[in-house]
Amino acid sequence: MSSTYGENLKLSIFGQSHGVAIGMTLDGIPAGLRVDVDELQSFLNRRAPGQSDWSTPRKEEDKPEFLAGVSNGSTTGAPIAAIIYNTNTRSGDYDNLKNCPRPGHADYTAQVKYGGFQDAAGGGHFSGRLTAPLCIAGGLCKQWLEEMGIRIGAHIVQIGSEYGNRFDCLNPQLDQVGKIFPTLTAETAEAFQAEISKARAQGDSVGGRIECAITGLPAGIGEPMFGGVESRIAQIVYGIPAVKNVGFGLSDSFATACGSESNDAFTSENGQVKTVTNRCGGILGGITNGMPVIFDVTIKPTPSISKPQQTINLQTGEITTIQVKGRHDPCIVPRAVPVVEAAAAVAIFDMILDMKRG
Amino acid sequence: MSSTYGENLKLSIFGQSHGVAIGMTLDGIPAGLRVDVDELQSFLNRRAPGQSDWSTPRKEEDKPEFLAGVSNGSTTGAPIAAIIYNTNTRSGDYDNLKNCPRPGHADYTAQVKYGGFQDAAGGGHFSGRLTAPLCIAGGLCKQWLEEMGIRIGAHIVQIGSEYGNRFDCLNPQLDQVGKIFPTLTAETAEAFQAEISKARAQGDSVGGRIECAITGLPAGIGEPMFGGVESRIAQIVYGIPAVKNVGFGLSDSFATACGSESNDAFTSENGQVKTVTNRCGGILGGITNGMPVIFDVTIKPTPSISKPQQTINLQTGEITTIQVKGRHDPCIVPRAVPVVEAAAAVAIFDMILDMKRG
Amino acid sequence: MSSTYGENLKLSIFGQSHGVAIGMTLDGIPAGLRVDVDELQSFLNRRAPGQSDWSTPRKEEDKPEFLAGVSNGSTTGAPIAAIIYNTNTRSGDYDNLKNCPRPGHADYTAQVKYGGFQDAAGGGHFSGRLTAPLCIAGGLCKQWLEEMGIRIGAHIVQIGSEYGNRFDCLNPQLDQVGKIFPTLTAETAEAFQAEISKARAQGDSVGGRIECAITGLPAGIGEPMFGGVESRIAQIVYGIPAVKNVGFGLSDSFATACGSESNDAFTSENGQVKTVTNRCGGILGGITNGMPVIFDVTIKPTPSISKPQQTINLQTGEITTIQVKGRHDPCIVPRAVPVVEAAAAVAIFDMILDMKRG
Amino acid sequence: MSSTYGENLKLSIFGQSHGVAIGMTLDGIPAGLRVDVDELQSFLNRRAPGQSDWSTPRKEEDKPEFLAGVSNGSTTGAPIAAIIYNTNTRSGDYDNLKNCPRPGHADYTAQVKYGGFQDAAGGGHFSGRLTAPLCIAGGLCKQWLEEMGIRIGAHIVQIGSEYGNRFDCLNPQLDQVGKIFPTLTAETAEAFQAEISKARAQGDSVGGRIECAITGLPAGIGEPMFGGVESRIAQIVYGIPAVKNVGFGLSDSFATACGSESNDAFTSENGQVKTVTNRCGGILGGITNGMPVIFDVTIKPTPSISKPQQTINLQTGEITTIQVKGRHDPCIVPRAVPVVEAAAAVAIFDMILDMKRG
Repeated sequence: MSSTYGENLKLSIFGQSHGVAIGMTLDGIPAGLRVDVDELQSFLNRRAPGQSDWSTPRKEEDKPEFLAGVSNGSTTGAPIAAIIYNTNTRSGDYDNLKNCPRPGHADYTAQVKYGGFQDAAGGGHFSGRLTAPLCIAGGLCKQWLEEMGIRIGAHIVQIGSEYGNRFDCLNPQLDQVGKIFPTLTAETAEAFQAEISKARAQGDSVGGRIECAITGLPAGIGEPMFGGVESRIAQIVYGIPAVKNVGFGLSDSFATACGSESNDAFTSENGQVKTVTNRCGGILGGITNGMPVIFDVTIKPTPSISKPQQTINLQTGEITTIQVKGRHDPCIVPRAVPVVEAAAAVAIFDMILDMKRG
Repeated sequence: MSSTYGENLKLSIFGQSHGVAIGMTLDGIPAGLRVDVDELQSFLNRRAPGQSDWSTPRKEEDKPEFLAGVSNGSTTGAPIAAIIYNTNTRSGDYDNLKNCPRPGHADYTAQVKYGGFQDAAGGGHFSGRLTAPLCIAGGLCKQWLEEMGIRIGAHIVQIGSEYGNRFDCLNPQLDQVGKIFPTLTAETAEAFQAEISKARAQGDSVGGRIECAITGLPAGIGEPMFGGVESRIAQIVYGIPAVKNVGFGLSDSFATACGSESNDAFTSENGQVKTVTNRCGGILGGITNGMPVIFDVTIKPTPSISKPQQTINLQTGEITTIQVKGRHDPCIVPRAVPVVEAAAAVAIFDMILDMKRG
Repeated sequence: MSSTYGENLKLSIFGQSHGVAIGMTLDGIPAGLRVDVDELQSFLNRRAPGQSDWSTPRKEEDKPEFLAGVSNGSTTGAPIAAIIYNTNTRSGDYDNLKNCPRPGHADYTAQVKYGGFQDAAGGGHFSGRLTAPLCIAGGLCKQWLEEMGIRIGAHIVQIGSEYGNRFDCLNPQLDQVGKIFPTLTAETAEAFQAEISKARAQGDSVGGRIECAITGLPAGIGEPMFGGVESRIAQIVYGIPAVKNVGFGLSDSFATACGSESNDAFTSENGQVKTVTNRCGGILGGITNGMPVIFDVTIKPTPSISKPQQTINLQTGEITTIQVKGRHDPCIVPRAVPVVEAAAAVAIFDMILDMKRG
Repeated sequence: MSSTYGENLKLSIFGQSHGVAIGMTLDGIPAGLRVDVDELQSFLNRRAPGQSDWSTPRKEEDKPEFLAGVSNGSTTGAPIAAIIYNTNTRSGDYDNLKNCPRPGHADYTAQVKYGGFQDAAGGGHFSGRLTAPLCIAGGLCKQWLEEMGIRIGAHIVQIGSEYGNRFDCLNPQLDQVGKIFPTLTAETAEAFQAEISKARAQGDSVGGRIECAITGLPAGIGEPMFGGVESRIAQIVYGIPAVKNVGFGLSDSFATACGSESNDAFTSENGQVKTVTNRCGGILGGITNGMPVIFDVTIKPTPSISKPQQTINLQTGEITTIQVKGRHDPCIVPRAVPVVEAAAAVAIFDMILDMKRG
C-alpha cells in the first residue's frame, strides 16, 4: 500500500509539494505518551531547508498543527493527525517542465501511472517535501523511544569521494555528531562541505552515505523472515526519496569478508550476553541481539541540476534539452540525516509495539 | 508480521529445519494460471544442496507436494498450499550446541525471543532450508510472470575479493548466465570457485554479492513512498537469511557519483520512451520506468565454520569455544541465486496484481 | 487496526468530537476519478444534524476541506486527505460527566483503555460526529461507483414498534426513498416520526433498522471465507457507532426458514443468469451473484437520554444518578441512513479494486 | 484478503473439499503456549459429521497433523501449520452438477469468479469442510484463552420455528450446555431435534440461530471504529459458510427498544465496575466493558436438499431441474456451534495479542 506503513501502528502520509497542506495520520499509538512540541520542532528544523550554506535558501515553515490525537501534551490513544500548511508555492517555476520529464525525477513514471491527473508541481506527492510529515511521525516516535532508553542518531559517512569515520559500532558516539553539520569530526564536515561546494560550482550535485545507530534496544525485537528488523527498516527507509542502497552492520563489505571475520563471538558483561564485535549490526535472524543496531543508507545525488540534460517532449516525441531552474540543494544528504532517523524511529517503535500494546 | 508477505497475494511460510515438513501457502492468486511442475522442480533443484562441488553434500529431496489450490495443471483461485517433507533430519548433530549459541546464527536471538520453546535443531524456523518454500512460491510467480513476458534472472558478481562482470543494465544477458554456476563467464566461475575452495580449505567460509535483473516490466508498476518497488523488493529479499545489503541501479556507487553521472537522459526507441542509461535500475519515485529493474544483494559468509569460535554457555554463563560440525556450505551465495530470483518474483507478481486482479 | 479500513484502499479516520478538526485520509485510489464537491456536500448534508424536526437542533457545518489528493476536480492518484474543522465545541456541557460514565456510551471503556488521557469531550474519538469523515470517504466512493453503474441506497424499515416496507429485493426502489425522511412511503415516514416524537416527549430515545441495497454489481465480486462481501461490509458497518446487528438477504429470518424457502432458483433473463428470488441478498459463498446486494442494520437507541440513569463515580466508587443534558437526537436512525450507505460504498469500492487497479 | 484473517496473528486456511488435504497456518503466536492435542481432538469431534442422528452419516476423520510450530506439546513461536488429509472423496457424486449450479451454493459464483478452474467437487474451497481447519485454529486459541481464564461457549437458541432459552447474559451457563446436542435444556434439544427430523422427512432442511458467550474478558479489549470487537468478530464469523446474520447483546431487538431499556446502568461489585444489565453484550464503543461478550449468529438452512429445484445449465442456457443427491445434514446448526466458538476464539485471541505480544 503506497503511502501507508506499519504493522501495529499505521502511518499514512499525504500531500503534494504545492498543495494546500501536507500531513500524516498515525494510528495505533497508546494513550498517555508525552508529546514535546518544542523538541519536535527542533527535530523538524534539522530537515528544513535554508539552515546552512550547504542547502537550498528557500524558506519553508515546517510548523506542524495537530488536528487530533494529542491533548494536554499527551497522546489520547485516538489516531494522531498533524498537518503543515504549504506557504511557499510557486508553481510557475515548474510550468515549462510539464511535458518534458526531468531526468532522475519521478515526473515520467508519475505521468505513466497517473495519466496526467497528478498534481505535479514541485514533484507532487513524490517531492522530498513529503519527508516533513515523515519527520513529524518519526520525531514523535523518537521521543517515545527515548523515554524507554532507546536512542537513534545518524551522521554522514561519505559525500562523493570523501569519507568520514564510521560509528564505533559497540558504542556509537551519538553525542559527538555535529549539530550544524552531522559528522563525527569538524575535519570531516569541512571536507564534505568542500565536496558539496564543488558540485554547486559546477551546476552539479553529489550523493553520499548516511550511517544510523540505534542504542538501548533490548534483545528479542523483530520477527523471523519478512518481519525481521532489516526488512522493516529497509521498507520504510526506501520510502525516502533518493535512497538507493540500504545495508546492515558490515553491509556490502560482508561480500568481501570470510566467515571468521564476519561472525561476532559471544561474551558477557555484568552478567549480560554481549558480542565482542558487532559486525552483524545488532541483528541475527532478523531479531535484535541487544547490541546497537547499525545500518547505512546511500542517497543518490539531487537529480535537479542546472547542467543541461537531454529529455523527451512527451507530447511531440521530440528529443530536447532542459535545464532545471530554481534553487535546489546541490546535496540533500545533510537534510536526509534526520529523515533517516525518523524512518528508523517509526520502524523501531512499530516493532516495540509488537511486544507491548495498551 | 513475521513469516507472511504481500499486499495482494499473501505468502505464508512455515516449517523448521528438522520438523515434519516445511511449506507455504499462497493466497490471492487468480484462477487459471498454468503450473508447470517439472519446470518448478528444475527451479527448486538450483537451490537444493549437493548439486555441485561448491556446496554441501547433504542430500535433500526438495520435492513439493501440492495440497490445495492447484488442479489439472492450473491454479483454482483458492489458496495454494505446498509442502516438502523433511527426510534427512539428524538432530543429534546439533545437540551439543543447545546451550552454546553459534556466532553469526540466530540461536541466541531465538532463545531470547522464544524462551527455549523453539524447535532449534538445524536452525529451526531460521534455517536456510526455509528458502525452499520461498522458492516454491517464487518459482510459481516466475512462471506466471514469464507468460506475461517478464523475465527474472540473477548471477553472482562477487565472491570474497573476486569480482565478475555486471549485467548490461540496458539489456541484461539473462541467457548467458551459467546453468551449473551462475556467472556471466566461465572465467568468473573459475575465479569464484577458487575463492570458495580456498575458504573451505581453511575451515572458513566466504560471502558474495548477487545481481538480479527483471526485464519486460511495463512502466507504471509500484507505488509512491513505502509501496515503491525498492521497498517491496527489499522487504522480501531481507527475509532471506544472510542478506545484509540491498541496492538498486548504481546502488552504493550513487554515494560517489555526481548528479550528471547519476541521472538517466530520456530518449525514445520505436516511439517508446526509454532512457539512454539505466543508472536508476529501472525505478524512479518507486515506480518502474519501463527499463530493466536491476538490484544487488550482499550475502554474508556462512556463519557455520569449522574454525573454533568463542561463545558463551547460556546456562552457566561460562565463556567457551565451539566448532560447528556437520557438512556446511563454505559459501551459500550460489544456492542463494535462485532464492533471490524467487523473492523478486513474488514481489513483482504482487505488484502486478495491483493493476489487474481477477 | 482501530480506525483504518480496507484491503486495496486504506481509509483512516481521525478526530475527536471537540478537537481542532475531524477528517480522513484515503489512500490507494486510482487517478482521474471525478470528484463532484457539490454532490458530496449534498450527501454530507443528509447526515448533518438540524435537517429536520426529528433530529438535534445543533448546527454544525460539515464542510470538507480537501488538503491533498484532489486537483482540478479529479483524484490525482496520491492519497486524498480532507478535514472538517470543528466550530461548535462546547466542552462545558460535558464537564460534570467526566467521572461518571454515561450508560450506553463509551465513556467507561475509553477510560479503561486510555487511562484518562483521551479527549473525552463530546464522546471524543467515539463520537457519532466521526461518521462525518466516513461520509466524505463514502460519498466519494459512491460517486465513483455510480459512474460504473453501481448504485447504493438505504432507507428505514423499523423504528421502535413501527415497521415499514422492505425493498423489492429483485428491483430495489432506490428512487422512491424519501429525500427528507428516508422511507419508501409517506405513511411510513409519519408513523416513524410519531414514534420518534413519542420517545422525545418521554425524555427517552428509540432504535430502528435500516435496509441498504446495492444495485448494478457484476457477479464475481468478493472473496471466499474472511474476504467475502458479508465479512467486508459487516466489518466497516460495525465501525458505525450504535450498530448492533447486521444481516444479509433474509437475515435473521433464515433461522425460521426451511431450505426450500431459502434457496434462490436460477433462471435467465436476456441471456444473463439471474435468480427467481433474492433471499440470499445477492451473495453466495461470499461472492456477488449479480443480483442486488441487500443487507440490514440494527441501530440501538441513542444512549443520551434525559431520563435519570444510575451510574458510578469512578473516583469515589459511589453509585449516583445522572441526567444527560444537551440537545440530543431522540433517534439517530434517520441520520445513520447515509452513513450506512457510505460504509457500504467504501467496502464495495474496495472490493471493486480487487479486480481493477490502476 | 480472501482466506486470511487477523491483525496480530495471521490465520490462513487452505484446501478443497475433495483435494489432497485441508489445513491452516497460524502465524504470530507467542512461544511456550501449551497444546493439548487430545482436547483439540475432542473439540474437532464436536464439528465432525456422523456424531449423532441429526447430522450426516458420512465418516470423516478430522485428525489434524501438525507439520510445524508445535514441539514437545508447546508452541515454538514459529508459524503453526496443521493439515487434515481428505480420506473420503467421492467426486463422482458431484459430476452431474458441474454445469448446473445448485441453488443456495457457491457453485455459480465460483464459476463466474474462477472461470471453471476451481476444483469444484464437494463445494471446493467453499465447502463447509473448510470449517475443520478453522476449528483447529480456534480450538488452539480456545485452549490458550482458557489458561487466561477466558471461556467461550455457544448453544442453539432457535431451529426453525422452535426457540430455546438464551444465556443469562450476566452469568452465561456455559457448563449447562448439552454435550451431545448443544442446548440449555433437554426439552429444547428434543424440540429442536423434532424440527430437524421433520425437515429431513420432507427432503428439506432448516436453519437456526446460535448464541455465543465469552466470559472472563478484561475491560479494555478492542479498538474504536473498524477495529472494534463487533467488527472483528463479525468479520471472521461471516467467514463461516451459511452465516447470514450477526448481532451483539440485544441484537436486532435494539430496533424495538427505547433508550431506557437499552442502556446498562453502572454499578460496582467487590470494588469492580459492573453493569446491572448486559444489553450491550459486553461491548461499548467497540471495547469490552468487562461483562460477558454475547453475540448471536443466524445460520441459513443447508442448501443441499433432495427436493427438486430449478436451475440453469450454464453450457446450454436451458432451464432444468436438479435434485441434490448424497447424504447431507438436514440442519448444520448443531455442527456450526463449535465453529462459531472457534471463530470467536481466533478473534478474541487476536485482540488479546493487541495488548501483550512476546
